[in-house]
Amino acid sequence: MTELLKKLLAGDRLALSRMITLVENQSDKLPAIMSQIHDHLGHASMIGITGPPGAGKSTLVNRLITQGRALGKKIGVVAIDPSSPFSGGALLGDRIRMQDHASDEGVFIRSLGSRGALGGVSRATRDVVRLMDAFGMDWILIETVGVGQTELNIMEIAHTTVVVLTPESGDTIQTMKAGLLEVADLFVINKADREGADKILHELKAMVEMSPHQNWLVPVLKIQAFHNVGIEALVKEIDAHQQFLQGSQELVVKQAMLREAELAELLAEQFREKFKEALSSRPEIKALQKKVLEGEISAYEGVLKIFPKLTKP
Amino acid sequence: MTELLKKLLAGDRLALSRMITLVENQSDKLPAIMSQIHDHLGHASMIGITGPPGAGKSTLVNRLITQGRALGKKIGVVAIDPSSPFSGGALLGDRIRMQDHASDEGVFIRSLGSRGALGGVSRATRDVVRLMDAFGMDWILIETVGVGQTELNIMEIAHTTVVVLTPESGDTIQTMKAGLLEVADLFVINKADREGADKILHELKAMVEMSPHQNWLVPVLKIQAFHNVGIEALVKEIDAHQQFLQGSQELVVKQAMLREAELAELLAEQFREKFKEALSSRPEIKALQKKVLEGEISAYEGVLKIFPKLTKP
Repeated sequence: MTELLKKLLAGDRLALSRMITLVENQSDKLPAIMSQIHDHLGHASMIGITGPPGAGKSTLVNRLITQGRALGKKIGVVAIDPSSPFSGGALLGDRIRMQDHASDEGVFIRSLGSRGALGGVSRATRDVVRLMDAFGMDWILIETVGVGQTELNIMEIAHTTVVVLTPESGDTIQTMKAGLLEVADLFVINKADREGADKILHELKAMVEMSPHQNWLVPVLKIQAFHNVGIEALVKEIDAHQQFLQGSQELVVKQAMLREAELAELLAEQFREKFKEALSSRPEIKALQKKVLEGEISAYEGVLKIFPKLTKP
Repeated sequence: MTELLKKLLAGDRLALSRMITLVENQSDKLPAIMSQIHDHLGHASMIGITGPPGAGKSTLVNRLITQGRALGKKIGVVAIDPSSPFSGGALLGDRIRMQDHASDEGVFIRSLGSRGALGGVSRATRDVVRLMDAFGMDWILIETVGVGQTELNIMEIAHTTVVVLTPESGDTIQTMKAGLLEVADLFVINKADREGADKILHELKAMVEMSPHQNWLVPVLKIQAFHNVGIEALVKEIDAHQQFLQGSQELVVKQAMLREAELAELLAEQFREKFKEALSSRPEIKALQKKVLEGEISAYEGVLKIFPKLTKP
């Protein structure tokens, strides 16, 4: 085991920070690191916070940190913004960091940019969360702007996913209906002092009652994160969901599914890498790719010709 | 060349319909079919229509069909609904089909469900569009509900993408800002008789003027699809964009990029298939996967052990 890894496991913040950078840069040390920390995982509760921009997620995350700290929890935050390639996802984390927890040693906040492929963001999130888990965090909050398919995929990493909406989110609910239901373990209506909060409350409750979740009736809570109203009740519901998970087989089944998907994804990604390397090291493969790019042959024909050159029969 | 393929190229609707079914079912005949029709592609104009639910896309598609038919165009429509696994995407096409064009031989409408992986939907769309192109369509309209990343990816297949919004879409615009700008060749504000149309018009125009599109200033149009207002102007702008594409290198560059991505995707997907097959035919690989699923080893370690068994060095 490397010195860096030992430091991480001993709770060294600088080591955590450095190793997150390795994840971001897709270092070729990752497979070794992730294999070595594998036996040190499983302590943290992963809590996902997602919702459209302007829903008040950062404010809520900030309140949850305060609440968690009062309970003595060590808290990691991963903030992701995959829908905006321009901001680089740095804003979210900054916004939280600049608030009340900058000097708190029990809190570690990191933003993840959205460089590279979409698969890249999920993978980076997964691995950063693991590093924070190995580091010894009790809660890991995963915050992502947006409620598109990508964000929902990222949220699958969380044990408990809180979807934050506002009285103005009618459009989002209609667009993402099925996706939201699939991902939400808890719905929160923030800014609940605004007009329309009860209308959306009833809409969500009706949706939830028709949803496929079998043993967990997804709660719908009204909160006002800015005014610090409803946060304790939310933390209680998060706890309740975590206890539900521990009492059921759901988490075991879900984790096996996530691992299955991760293995298949990493293998496919490794193969993409292999192809990319072959493009620069093997002229006959580069020549075939060129034929596809220029439209001389179809991509399917390209696959028929290239695939056997890279794989065992 | 098969009999079915000859019939498709001769403009046989039943052959088109059957071959689309082959695409949907991911038939293993696809590579051969797609390679054979490859030399018969390139006639059609692909026009993408996307936007949030309730924006009036189906009504607009219906109007565009009428307009295109009046110009003597043969028109194919592919309707996709990837954000809703429940509807199976059948509703969109039905809604259009049931309207004015059911008995028109110059129109062919097909819905694509969202079964299987997301990559699956993009691939199916790409291939159905190719079949329609080989069949001899002049316009191919690709309609998809939603403006998430998946929908935007699908829209990359289109030469000209129309993003349909309404005066109520402020939330969507804020959420998807960067994504919308990247994909839209034209913005349309439908239901423009409603309050707020001008506000959103100015917002979009301001966004467009700051956008990275170099040589094409994305037009923002107000229309009322239901009342048949503004459709002719829209068709003119679509034409203008297509002429812009022909006069520039943009389309050539874009197509090479799409083919590059397609080749890499198909290769990765082929590798996923190979892994899946190995899981049922090779017990030692199944055993390694089991270790990953049960958490005995990390997915990364699984990759290190499985990958060399499937690939040439």
